[in-house]
Amino acid sequence: MTLEPSPRSENARVRMAELSEKAGLPVATIKYYLREGLLPPGERTSPNQAKYDDGHVQRIKLIRALMEVGGLSLATVGEVLAAVDAGEASPHHVLGIAQQGITTSRQVADDEARAWALATVRGLAERRGWPCKADDDLVIQALVGVLCTIREVGHGWYLDKLDAYAEIADRIADLDLEGIAGIESLEQIIEIAVVETVLGDRLLSVLRRLAQQRASKAYFAQEG
Amino acid sequence: MTLEPSPRSENARVRMAELSEKAGLPVATIKYYLREGLLPPGERTSPNQAKYDDGHVQRIKLIRALMEVGGLSLATVGEVLAAVDAGEASPHHVLGIAQQGITTSRQVADDEARAWALATVRGLAERRGWPCKADDDLVIQALVGVLCTIREVGHGWYLDKLDAYAEIADRIADLDLEGIAGIESLEQIIEIAVVETVLGDRLLSVLRRLAQQRASKAYFAQEG
Repeated sequence: MTLEPSPRSENARVRMAELSEKAGLPVATIKYYLREGLLPPGERTSPNQAKYDDGHVQRIKLIRALMEVGGLSLATVGEVLAAVDAGEASPHHVLGIAQQGITTSRQVADDEARAWALATVRGLAERRGWPCKADDDLVIQALVGVLCTIREVGHGWYLDKLDAYAEIADRIADLDLEGIAGIESLEQIIEIAVVETVLGDRLLSVLRRLAQQRASKAYFAQEG
Repeated sequence: MTLEPSPRSENARVRMAELSEKAGLPVATIKYYLREGLLPPGERTSPNQAKYDDGHVQRIKLIRALMEVGGLSLATVGEVLAAVDAGEASPHHVLGIAQQGITTSRQVADDEARAWALATVRGLAERRGWPCKADDDLVIQALVGVLCTIREVGHGWYLDKLDAYAEIADRIADLDLEGIAGIESLEQIIEIAVVETVLGDRLLSVLRRLAQQRASKAYFAQEG
């Protein structure tokens, strides 16, 4: 992967030490990003010096979000950045690549179980008007894995509520998309989407537990 | 921890081999549960034989849910079961113990950050009428950790939506509580709550990604 120097040379250009300070990242890490081709080279001002601009700062923020928050592999970060740099892809397409990177799925070995889960996913997607990608899409695979686990532990009844949870998921997604509405920089859109999704999952999981305390207290107080 | 033999002797009593089959678990694992005191001893019918009843099957299901799905430590499983067996505690109280077991939190070292996050949590809890437990409650600590992480990665703006996400969390919790409405066995209530919460988090996280695909496609199609 080769990257062109960032075109935004109208911005204040700084040396490596200042870039490190601006980005809040050690020089060694920035040099690592440069070596791996994740970060475009600076503009060379002498054989041993280069200058960097705001484009570098923003790119570093995106790389950190993808790697440190999203847990993306170096290879997947490369794919996302290549799509960003290609400049032709729609945000929807690049978001899709980033989303695959932050999704972990479990391979279901049992053919019958996989077929049942896939049919369940297809039915749900149709009812909710969700785009239904190929069977080997990582998000589809992840959903198939979770459905099979729920059935395996003997709690298939839980899936009666699948549509109710999916409706809630739609509300969350609308709230997520609000966060990137109006933002023009594709790099920033991707960064925000990854942070929102990964940290947002953790946030929602904890908020849910506090809300459960409220619901459980109310419910069992009624009982007693 | 010592456990009395299960009182439901009106149920069909079976030998270890049949218990293993009924519970879908290897004999060695059941013997391990017995040795650790998680499972009450069967009724001895000869020096080398004992019989087990439906209470044992249900208890094994609960232990598996706590350990395998919930990832609870042996010590925490012991605490939950002791509370179940004490018979005095309300379901709300026992659910609270189980909930602490399935919650992982991150210790925030920075005093200023922790104070800010705690104040944010307190404010939110007040606005939503959520019970606000002690500062060292694991769920509170987990929320403090997530809030600090979001701020550290430079996305504090995301917390403007905290109340909107909390409202959604309340809807999820109500849906969760529906799942245990009307169930009388405390063991089953705990089992369902743990499965619903742990696998439900994973389910919702994947559903959210599918819903995001729908939202992103619609949003960026409008744009173009």
